[in-house]
Amino acid sequence: MRTAEIPDIVIGRLPIYLRELELLAHNGQEVTSSHELGERLGISSAQIRKDLSWFGPFGKQGTGYHVNYLVEQLRKIMQVDREWPVAVVGAGDLGRALARYGGFAHRGFRITCIFDNDVAKIDTYVGNLRVMSTVDLKDEISLRGIQIAMVAVPAGSAQAVTNALVEAGVKAILNYAPITLSVPPDVHVQYIDPATHLQHMTYYLR
Amino acid sequence: MRTAEIPDIVIGRLPIYLRELELLAHNGQEVTSSHELGERLGISSAQIRKDLSWFGPFGKQGTGYHVNYLVEQLRKIMQVDREWPVAVVGAGDLGRALARYGGFAHRGFRITCIFDNDVAKIDTYVGNLRVMSTVDLKDEISLRGIQIAMVAVPAGSAQAVTNALVEAGVKAILNYAPITLSVPPDVHVQYIDPATHLQHMTYYLR
Repeated sequence: MRTAEIPDIVIGRLPIYLRELELLAHNGQEVTSSHELGERLGISSAQIRKDLSWFGPFGKQGTGYHVNYLVEQLRKIMQVDREWPVAVVGAGDLGRALARYGGFAHRGFRITCIFDNDVAKIDTYVGNLRVMSTVDLKDEISLRGIQIAMVAVPAGSAQAVTNALVEAGVKAILNYAPITLSVPPDVHVQYIDPATHLQHMTYYLR
Repeated sequence: MRTAEIPDIVIGRLPIYLRELELLAHNGQEVTSSHELGERLGISSAQIRKDLSWFGPFGKQGTGYHVNYLVEQLRKIMQVDREWPVAVVGAGDLGRALARYGGFAHRGFRITCIFDNDVAKIDTYVGNLRVMSTVDLKDEISLRGIQIAMVAVPAGSAQAVTNALVEAGVKAILNYAPITLSVPPDVHVQYIDPATHLQHMTYYLR
């Protein structure tokens, strides 16, 4: 089922499909169609059918998709049918907001540790989590076997933090610092930079 | 220069190029090449040349790009050679972090107002900004002529907030709520949902 040929852009749409299907399931809807999903997501129904067909025949012509079954299958495909421990680096406004964010719990993730290099923040609490020193980052992350981290430090510190995360065994980094990171080929990075998203849109404003 | 034919995926890469060029300029570098930019960004140099060629001949074979000139041109193309006022809706952890974030100032944006519907938050301050009631959202935003907003409210309120923003004249929305929004065709939406980004990466983890 998992082949190297599946384009990354297809993989990137799966979480969007899953999120919408989970919303339908939450609302008690049992069956949907590529047409309905497409309408709700602003994606063509043909695109949705094509994307899902990489992973198997999930629906029948004329009867649509069983929402709960497709949710379960997509969770397995994306490996979020489990709970991944996640580290947050940076206990500033953003890092603290991420550590307290309630939106990870039902989507496969739990923030289990948070680090900062500011002595004024170390040993303070963010929710239930004690802020640890970045001095202990490598040991703690490799000891806990954490593979996923979110980087919420200033741009000037982000590459050094990333290097430490990679040495500790992290394989997936969600980077909030406004800088492109350099990582080995087996480490995945996704970027969240609100100014970049805003600039993408101002191009179109008249 | 601005044509409807330019693919949106090209527009989406321009802010990444600009950000890296600004970093080079900040470091005092005067000239760069598509090869160097490509190395730093993990994008092929051919892709970069092709993307930039939509907008004009910015470099000469063999001499590369003048960093400051290209920065200036990209800012004009994306219309961030000015400062756009931006509204934040939601004064929770995330909304407050966004309102205080220092990374917008030099990239074309300034948060000028923040709204919440919680009476415990209304009239409190986030930095210099007084939290206003969402009751006043439409009037304030249309009065101020604001075209850009960031939505940082729970998923269940995001569509209603979006409708109010659109009625007030907002044309570009950066949505942090984990839900796909429905907007008229002339309104642009970009999405930031960390769980979606994380799920994209867990697909690849072994």
